[in-house]
Amino acid sequence: MTFTTQTPETLSSQKTRLLARQNTITNTAGYSGANLQANLLILPEKYSRDFHNLCLRNPVACPLLGISSIPGNPHKISPTPCIRNSDFDIRTDCPAYRVYKHGKCIAANKRDLLGLWSANDVEGQQSSENYTAFLLGCSYSFEAALCNAIPPLTPRHQVTNTLVPMYRTSLPLSPAGIFTNATCTVSMRPYHESEVERVRDITRPYLATHGEPIAWGWDAVKRLGIRDIHDPDFGDKVEFGDGEVPVFWACGVTPQMAVEAAGEKIDGLVFAHEPGHMLVTDWVVEDLERLKGGIAAFRAKI
Amino acid sequence: MTFTTQTPETLSSQKTRLLARQNTITNTAGYSGANLQANLLILPEKYSRDFHNLCLRNPVACPLLGISSIPGNPHKISPTPCIRNSDFDIRTDCPAYRVYKHGKCIAANKRDLLGLWSANDVEGQQSSENYTAFLLGCSYSFEAALCNAIPPLTPRHQVTNTLVPMYRTSLPLSPAGIFTNATCTVSMRPYHESEVERVRDITRPYLATHGEPIAWGWDAVKRLGIRDIHDPDFGDKVEFGDGEVPVFWACGVTPQMAVEAAGEKIDGLVFAHEPGHMLVTDWVVEDLERLKGGIAAFRAKI
Repeated sequence: MTFTTQTPETLSSQKTRLLARQNTITNTAGYSGANLQANLLILPEKYSRDFHNLCLRNPVACPLLGISSIPGNPHKISPTPCIRNSDFDIRTDCPAYRVYKHGKCIAANKRDLLGLWSANDVEGQQSSENYTAFLLGCSYSFEAALCNAIPPLTPRHQVTNTLVPMYRTSLPLSPAGIFTNATCTVSMRPYHESEVERVRDITRPYLATHGEPIAWGWDAVKRLGIRDIHDPDFGDKVEFGDGEVPVFWACGVTPQMAVEAAGEKIDGLVFAHEPGHMLVTDWVVEDLERLKGGIAAFRAKI
Repeated sequence: MTFTTQTPETLSSQKTRLLARQNTITNTAGYSGANLQANLLILPEKYSRDFHNLCLRNPVACPLLGISSIPGNPHKISPTPCIRNSDFDIRTDCPAYRVYKHGKCIAANKRDLLGLWSANDVEGQQSSENYTAFLLGCSYSFEAALCNAIPPLTPRHQVTNTLVPMYRTSLPLSPAGIFTNATCTVSMRPYHESEVERVRDITRPYLATHGEPIAWGWDAVKRLGIRDIHDPDFGDKVEFGDGEVPVFWACGVTPQMAVEAAGEKIDGLVFAHEPGHMLVTDWVVEDLERLKGGIAAFRAKI
C-alpha cells in the first residue's frame, strides 16, 4: 500500500480503521498521529462489572478510553466521542486479534472475530455469549510527545526500530472481584539520569495513556521484582548507554495478564488485540486533560 | 451533649458539621450515618496539581470526594453536591486538625485553622498562601454496611471499642510530580477465612471510600512488607480468633504519609484532619455508584 497524498501519520482515525478492517496494515505505530490508540479487551458480559472495577481501581495500568454501550453489540462505544462512525465494528477494526480461554492464549494474529462473536443484531442471530468490550489507553501517544521534545527524547526502541521491551513485575494490582493476584506489566525506555525529570514532565499529562513513569533507576529493577532487565518478557532487548537508567511505565499488556491470572475463573472466550496492532480511536490529544479524570465526565453528557 | 430527640446516627450532615465547628464533638464515628465522611488534606496551591494527579493515579488509597473550587477560599467545594451549605468553612468544620511542615507533623489536635489560614475573602485580608483542600473517602461508610450484614460482619475494633489497627506497607503509590517514594497505608480487620468473600462483596461497591480489600490472608502480611502484624503503626492492636486471617484495606492516612515522603520538597504548611475526626460531607450512600467513576462525572454537570 502506498500513500500518494497522505502519510500514515496524517490519516484520519476512520481511514486507519478501514485499513485495519481490510487487513492491509499490521502495526499501527505512527498511524493517525493526532488520535489516541487503544488496547482492547473483550469478555463475557457476566465479568464486565469486575473488569470495569479492575480498571477503575488501577487506572495507571488500565486507563479506560471507552466501553461498548450494549452487551453483545460490537458497533457502539460509550462515550460517543471515542468512536463516532456508525459503520464501526470492534470485531474487524483492529488489524489483528488474540483469543484467550481459561486464561491461556489459544489463538493469535487472527484477522477478525466474526466467526467467534456473532453479534445479536446481525441477521437475527443470537450469540451464545453477550460480550462487552473495553478500550484502554496506549503509550503510543506520549511517544510522539517524547520524539517532538526539544531537545528530543526519542525512545530507544524507535531508534533501533524494534518493539519496546516489556517486563512482568511483582507489583500487585488492586484486586476486583474475580481479578485477584494480577500484577502490573511495565514497558521500559532507557534515559540518562539527567533526562528523567524532563521525561516525567512530558508524559505526566497523558494520564489516560499511562501518564508519567511509575519507577526509574537501577534500584527500581529489584523493587519491581523484574527477573532480568536484559531479557524482557515481551518485546525486544535494548542497550543502555553510559549514565543511562531504566525508566518504567505501566503497560497496556497488564489487562491480558490479569485475564491470565484469573485463569479458570473465566468461563468462555476472551478477546484482545494483537500487541502493537491497536484500535485507533477518535479521541485526540486535546481530550487528554478531561480524560485524565476518567471517562465518567464524558458519560454524564451522553 | 445529650440528644433528646436525635441520635448522632440520625443527625443531618450540616448538624454534625456545626457540632464540629463548635468543638463539642471529637471522633465522628457513627455520626450522620447516611452520609459519607471524608479525610482532609489542604496544601499550598502550587502543589495542588501534583496532589490531584496523585489521587487520580491512586484512587483506591486516595479516592476523591471533593476539591475546593477556588484556591484560598475555604467555603466552596466542588462538585457542589459534596457540601451544599453556604456557611461551610473547611477551617472549622472538622472537629480537630493537624499541621505539617516539611513533611513533619508540627501540631496536632488543633480546634481550627483560623489563625493559620487567613482566607482571601475575609475582611479583605490577603493570605500569604493560597491553599487548596482535598476531601478523600473514608472507610467509616462501609463499616456500617459490614455491621448491618446478615449475619453481621462487625469489625473487631468496633466490638472492642478501640481504633482500627493501621500499618505502613512497602506497596508503592504511583508517583505524581513531587509525590515520589510514597507507600500505601492499610487498615486491618480480622475475619474468618470463610467470611472473606462475603466481606469483599459487601465492601466492593464502596469504591469511593476505599472499596474492597487490597489483600487478605497471613501470606499478605509479608507481601505487603508489614513489620509486625501484632504491633500496628497507628491505632490499636486487635486479637485474632481461631481460623481468622488479616484483611487489609487501603487507608485514608495514606495522603498524610505521601506528604511525609515528599518532605522538604513542600515549602509551606500542610493541614490535615486529626485521624478519626473526619469531615462529614453531604454525599449519601446512594451517590456511591456514580462516585465510583470519580467526581469528574459530577463536575461536568456544574
